[in-house]
Amino acid sequence: MIKVGIVGGTGYTGAELLRLLAGHPAAKVIIITSRTQKDVPVAQLYPNLRGLVDLTFTDPDIDKLSECDVVFFATPHGVAQRTVPAILATGTKVIDLSADFRIRDIALWEKWYGQDHVAPELIAKAVYGLPEYHRDAICRADLIACPGCYPTSVQLGLLPLLEAGCIDLSDIIANSASGVSGAGRQASVANLLPEVSDSFKAYGASGHRHLPEIEQGLADMAGASVNLTFVPHLLPINRGIHSTIYANLIDTDVDVQRLFEARYGDEPFVDVLPAGSHPETRSVRGSNFCRIAVHRPGTGRKVVVLVVEDNLAKGASGQAIQCMNLMFKFSEMAGLNLPGLVP
Amino acid sequence: MIKVGIVGGTGYTGAELLRLLAGHPAAKVIIITSRTQKDVPVAQLYPNLRGLVDLTFTDPDIDKLSECDVVFFATPHGVAQRTVPAILATGTKVIDLSADFRIRDIALWEKWYGQDHVAPELIAKAVYGLPEYHRDAICRADLIACPGCYPTSVQLGLLPLLEAGCIDLSDIIANSASGVSGAGRQASVANLLPEVSDSFKAYGASGHRHLPEIEQGLADMAGASVNLTFVPHLLPINRGIHSTIYANLIDTDVDVQRLFEARYGDEPFVDVLPAGSHPETRSVRGSNFCRIAVHRPGTGRKVVVLVVEDNLAKGASGQAIQCMNLMFKFSEMAGLNLPGLVP
Amino acid sequence: MIKVGIVGGTGYTGAELLRLLAGHPAAKVIIITSRTQKDVPVAQLYPNLRGLVDLTFTDPDIDKLSECDVVFFATPHGVAQRTVPAILATGTKVIDLSADFRIRDIALWEKWYGQDHVAPELIAKAVYGLPEYHRDAICRADLIACPGCYPTSVQLGLLPLLEAGCIDLSDIIANSASGVSGAGRQASVANLLPEVSDSFKAYGASGHRHLPEIEQGLADMAGASVNLTFVPHLLPINRGIHSTIYANLIDTDVDVQRLFEARYGDEPFVDVLPAGSHPETRSVRGSNFCRIAVHRPGTGRKVVVLVVEDNLAKGASGQAIQCMNLMFKFSEMAGLNLPGLVP
Amino acid sequence: MIKVGIVGGTGYTGAELLRLLAGHPAAKVIIITSRTQKDVPVAQLYPNLRGLVDLTFTDPDIDKLSECDVVFFATPHGVAQRTVPAILATGTKVIDLSADFRIRDIALWEKWYGQDHVAPELIAKAVYGLPEYHRDAICRADLIACPGCYPTSVQLGLLPLLEAGCIDLSDIIANSASGVSGAGRQASVANLLPEVSDSFKAYGASGHRHLPEIEQGLADMAGASVNLTFVPHLLPINRGIHSTIYANLIDTDVDVQRLFEARYGDEPFVDVLPAGSHPETRSVRGSNFCRIAVHRPGTGRKVVVLVVEDNLAKGASGQAIQCMNLMFKFSEMAGLNLPGLVP
Repeated sequence: MIKVGIVGGTGYTGAELLRLLAGHPAAKVIIITSRTQKDVPVAQLYPNLRGLVDLTFTDPDIDKLSECDVVFFATPHGVAQRTVPAILATGTKVIDLSADFRIRDIALWEKWYGQDHVAPELIAKAVYGLPEYHRDAICRADLIACPGCYPTSVQLGLLPLLEAGCIDLSDIIANSASGVSGAGRQASVANLLPEVSDSFKAYGASGHRHLPEIEQGLADMAGASVNLTFVPHLLPINRGIHSTIYANLIDTDVDVQRLFEARYGDEPFVDVLPAGSHPETRSVRGSNFCRIAVHRPGTGRKVVVLVVEDNLAKGASGQAIQCMNLMFKFSEMAGLNLPGLVP
Repeated sequence: MIKVGIVGGTGYTGAELLRLLAGHPAAKVIIITSRTQKDVPVAQLYPNLRGLVDLTFTDPDIDKLSECDVVFFATPHGVAQRTVPAILATGTKVIDLSADFRIRDIALWEKWYGQDHVAPELIAKAVYGLPEYHRDAICRADLIACPGCYPTSVQLGLLPLLEAGCIDLSDIIANSASGVSGAGRQASVANLLPEVSDSFKAYGASGHRHLPEIEQGLADMAGASVNLTFVPHLLPINRGIHSTIYANLIDTDVDVQRLFEARYGDEPFVDVLPAGSHPETRSVRGSNFCRIAVHRPGTGRKVVVLVVEDNLAKGASGQAIQCMNLMFKFSEMAGLNLPGLVP
Repeated sequence: MIKVGIVGGTGYTGAELLRLLAGHPAAKVIIITSRTQKDVPVAQLYPNLRGLVDLTFTDPDIDKLSECDVVFFATPHGVAQRTVPAILATGTKVIDLSADFRIRDIALWEKWYGQDHVAPELIAKAVYGLPEYHRDAICRADLIACPGCYPTSVQLGLLPLLEAGCIDLSDIIANSASGVSGAGRQASVANLLPEVSDSFKAYGASGHRHLPEIEQGLADMAGASVNLTFVPHLLPINRGIHSTIYANLIDTDVDVQRLFEARYGDEPFVDVLPAGSHPETRSVRGSNFCRIAVHRPGTGRKVVVLVVEDNLAKGASGQAIQCMNLMFKFSEMAGLNLPGLVP
Repeated sequence: MIKVGIVGGTGYTGAELLRLLAGHPAAKVIIITSRTQKDVPVAQLYPNLRGLVDLTFTDPDIDKLSECDVVFFATPHGVAQRTVPAILATGTKVIDLSADFRIRDIALWEKWYGQDHVAPELIAKAVYGLPEYHRDAICRADLIACPGCYPTSVQLGLLPLLEAGCIDLSDIIANSASGVSGAGRQASVANLLPEVSDSFKAYGASGHRHLPEIEQGLADMAGASVNLTFVPHLLPINRGIHSTIYANLIDTDVDVQRLFEARYGDEPFVDVLPAGSHPETRSVRGSNFCRIAVHRPGTGRKVVVLVVEDNLAKGASGQAIQCMNLMFKFSEMAGLNLPGLVP
């Protein structure tokens, strides 16, 4: 059993780490920190974990965290970078779920996140935690920058097309929609049930901070810069991301169904649906799977890719555990072999 | 007071006609038909109308319907065309909410609706009931083909751009999402609450029968054929359509905000939001308004139009009453001056 | 047209007053105040009112408010009592939607609301705004204390039984459930969509501050004190209250269906459903109606009353306008003749 | 590994058996039957099980089912009784999730279920599958009659009080509410999302067929007949039952909190919350736990018990697997050690 620490355990990604790790055969959470909930039992804040998680929130402490084999950061953007260097120095590995180490262009990060970066030297060291593209590097990494929820869905939806070089890079559209848990567990008026229930809207249509992360990832895959239009929307559901991706084929003879099936055939968590399918977010509710369907409406050059994931699982905590499994040579599916909760 | 008949009153569009007409100052429903609910009081099926609607469902009868000034058809596709000729012959006007008279290309209609058309001679006579584009013709019409819910949102979102000739017609995308009431009030497994609640999916990504209707309308506006990719999605909400429309500007100097404001400045039911806004479907819940926002993400040629409407109001019954108001020289807003129900 | 002012217009009851008064034939809102939203157009905060409400929030000002014929207070508990005396002194009538003037026992009020009452002399002057029980007094009142949302539903569900003296007063149970808008439009974690959606719970089972208000009202109707067990629950819906009330008949020969129909036969907003019915909250969504059904399960002495209302309409702003209509000799239904929004 | 068969696998309880058994360490489903979906892969109907369940629906066949160690019946009421005798005769054990063997009074069963019972001789042999009350008998049983979803919640909520003999048996109230999956996966208008979403209602207030099952169970526990008023309600959620139970204490000195904690201290799936708590249905979403809180509002004799369970898990398929674990001497929590999915 490896020893696991979680820094910032009161939000949704922290709680999801606890839920998933409670069933992990080879990892045990021994520390969970929260300044605001210090001394409060985890199961008081999350009664669904009563009887399964017997931990109490503590103040973050480098010495104690360094007793762990790996520490997850489930903190707001800007927090991890202040503590991670000290933890890495003790030989403990770190998996960061925030945006702190995702963007290689520091000025770009500082622009979108509105703060200075205090550990820029670590960015080159961090491995972007998308196993379907960076598996080997993840296996050897000490510091993982977990992808954002939207970026995971868009990158997985485009990876086979970009690697095959069969789409026009100058005009790609990702029309995405997320459940409200993506906004975090922060007091707000905007995400009260009466404000978002039984309704739907776009947001950030003129620019969203997940855009540079996605563009960086797509450019890596394409070997060239990509022009993406990304419009996120807010769904009146708890969990789930659905991305509808539009691109134009350069080569209209390509069999896109076969292309996706070939690329993802050995991937444990990416499931390419049969031709003609439409994935539902509920099929991955609480699960680490990502489901993809590919369509070619009409007879033209447009390809439409439909991608679903759970924003808290494959879009955050599940993917983080998948990275941990790779880093510690566990079975990649260890603790993650759960079907979506339907209905 | 004009006399109004409704054929097929048990579905959601029939109920919405009753709800809206209950408050109309110059029109009174005197007949509502349903074969399956014959002799059942309307308020028994729709208790929300108790005390406000005192009608009983009857069998459809041409003689009685011809006593009306206008008859609405809220029937499944293929029904209206069998009865409308006889009603029109008596001098009664007809507003059809089904697809029977929307498509001018009869072979195309027959392909998508899987049946022969039995009144093709009426199609040329029917006026497409989109007041923002066909107001004059609606004022003089005897037979209105009400636009579909998705087509209304997409056409209103593109009308100013098409009339101005400022977008590339070869690649337009409409990514739309509808509440479940758009599927009608039919027994089904697919639309049970546990099947669609807390979830989201696309459907008909490879082809949907609203596509030819939309393409016909857009071509009329553009004066040339248009290549549209249309992907509908199912929202876990009762009412509401949201369309996110992507097009490429030919002329990147055009001020799209001003273009939309100018085109719709005198329209009573199309509300162009201030620059930077994101309309919510709830803002038009139960209301005939359509709200639109225009974005230009980045600095390129992409324009993104966000459109919301209530699929049962501006997308069906509200728009039908708006047409009726025009046909009978009432104030266009008569009976429709209701704000969206928030929260 | 009378002139109307609204103090505290940014919450849900303020917005609901605006929505309903926008269609009132004899009253016009001329002032709406909010300290936090000063100078912000109402339609910016509530886009559903765009085109229908052309007001801007202002700081509260006694001189300007006194130009109104009536002022509604849609403020947190404890606010109205500080300003109402000055407004009443100018001859302007006041309708308070908060709890400030509902409880005659000042010590009891101070205990449950955790503050001193600063205008106790007005409590005797205030009329409890439940038209079905206090209509005559409301017609003559200068100050109305609008009933709470839960208290309205429980009192209307028990009124006929209490007046008839046919139930045991020592053991009455009100099992109530409310939509989340009842908690107000305040930033919080507890009422975020991911915290309450797709879930259900009781709260305040050991004591809720609506209990003394309900017990006071029931005692007035019964002419004796009443022992009520009241357990509220939180529904994952926007609007709506459902109370399931249990009482024991003293006289099992009474025809409870007829009793309710007789008591409410002339009431414009209380609708007694046919025997065997089960009212749905959606049947009164956005509407001032209260719907009631009465059951006698088994053959014993238990009577079960089912009551639905919209917590923001008949449970707050609708009832406040109903009181205004009575105070100014308008038709009692003026501006309130709206059916519930279904679906 | 024991071999498991499931008869009637297309409904929600069948799918839940598959989901939970997919992770069971000692049981493997080898047959799943459905006449209507014969030859259809399970994962086509339930894409959430893709990659985890590799079965195809087959016609029910006694010979094949008898190769199983245990067969679950997830069939409509009236079906199991026709096939179970033949299966039991082969030595295969049976766990029936329907109502066929729950009621010992055959005439009462026939009245509420509207059909003749064709295997009345098996009823005496069937063990009622509530482990918290019948654990020993379950361990030795060949035929289990799984409790209904509502009955499980009400019986668990009252068991400690009834065994202690401290409440008045003449007047107990169970006010229950269920998610829509409790109505099954049948095509219907009544349970379409637009019919039940954003709404709430009671149903069966004058009599529901779970009442005799509950009364039988409570009488067993009390050793005397019990007079129960049971009113079910329909929640706009997928899963979850919440029962609010009201009883009058005979002995007001009893410490009800301690009573519940003592009775359930060793139970693996019944979790008594700390005093003052209010359980949420989401805390058991997808989980076999039942959470209970006990309140004594005011200082009187009323006790209020709040109970939550997942109607498909502890209310059906989870409890069925719990029984299987007991019958085959597995750990009682095998395969069921999952936390509720929050959010």
